[in-house]
Amino acid sequence: MARGTETGRARCVGRSLLADAIAPTDAVARQFQLQMIQVRAATEADRDAIWNIFHEIIASGDTYAFDPKMSREEALAYWFRADTHTYVAEKDGRVVGTYILRPNQAGGGSHVANAAFMVAPDAQGSGVGREMAEHCLGQARRMGFRAMQFNFVVSTNAPAIHLWQQLGFKIVGTLPGAFHHPEKGYVDVYVMYRSLLDD
Amino acid sequence: MARGTETGRARCVGRSLLADAIAPTDAVARQFQLQMIQVRAATEADRDAIWNIFHEIIASGDTYAFDPKMSREEALAYWFRADTHTYVAEKDGRVVGTYILRPNQAGGGSHVANAAFMVAPDAQGSGVGREMAEHCLGQARRMGFRAMQFNFVVSTNAPAIHLWQQLGFKIVGTLPGAFHHPEKGYVDVYVMYRSLLDD
Repeated sequence: MARGTETGRARCVGRSLLADAIAPTDAVARQFQLQMIQVRAATEADRDAIWNIFHEIIASGDTYAFDPKMSREEALAYWFRADTHTYVAEKDGRVVGTYILRPNQAGGGSHVANAAFMVAPDAQGSGVGREMAEHCLGQARRMGFRAMQFNFVVSTNAPAIHLWQQLGFKIVGTLPGAFHHPEKGYVDVYVMYRSLLDD
Repeated sequence: MARGTETGRARCVGRSLLADAIAPTDAVARQFQLQMIQVRAATEADRDAIWNIFHEIIASGDTYAFDPKMSREEALAYWFRADTHTYVAEKDGRVVGTYILRPNQAGGGSHVANAAFMVAPDAQGSGVGREMAEHCLGQARRMGFRAMQFNFVVSTNAPAIHLWQQLGFKIVGTLPGAFHHPEKGYVDVYVMYRSLLDD
């Protein structure tokens, strides 16, 4: 499977179009849609777009354990931390998603990657999250990580859990009531994990 | 149960000595030993002692996922981070242990505490870890935390796991091969958790 690289090449470039030509219409439409998504390394010029997505996501307070009042400076310092690789997803030339990839721990834990993903609310459900996740798994393998771990997947975030499970992640831990959801109160949180060695 | 406070009062003060007077000799000895341990809030004057313990613990690389080459400045910045309460345990006037207590996450996850403990190698097995852990649970309750979580308990660290289980923590997650032990290779890591509401 072709994957995007840090130079910004879309991961779908190089795919055969012949298969698509004989595929059902909805598959063609989906393929076309995905071809419009490019995942690439973030640059300084993406900071405004990233902050806009980040701010909108954390303001809802229902998926991430960030302070909803986190400032732009704090958010971007976290998203562009020295040990962190930062990426964006573009669709029709607009940044609609962003993700980070870094070691989950230092020292004896640094062979396990951690990642976090954010998709602009108006672009959710259009394949952006999956494109970024597959790009992320490829990048993590290339960097030599042996596994990837999500420390804090809120159990009410069904689309995310479904996607991670489709991509081979398993729930390896359940933290009882570890997230205070703005509408649902205290809900469980999952730790999800997958090896990067087995395929 | 009397607990230490930030003013430095030992948590054993106020215990009846009558029971000890009729207790078996080893219980008396243990009680006496514990009375020599004082847990108190750390001050600037403790920084050298904390760094000495921290450095010795991470240099071995077998219990914590810190970079063994972490500098004094990095280590103390982490141990005295703005969101962190830092404590030391003294025995015979010497700092023999240190622990930190802070929110494990921000925002919707900030009701769960996280803590980390270090005991000087030559003071391990003398009750310092347990005194600090009990002090920590009391402080966390006083601060209003609803639960406590350890994110990264290396499965080969049997004394720590035994202590946490005795203190009511349960293994709620297992991270396969998430720690590279300097002698044992890739070993599992546990996520441990306990409510602070149920007793």
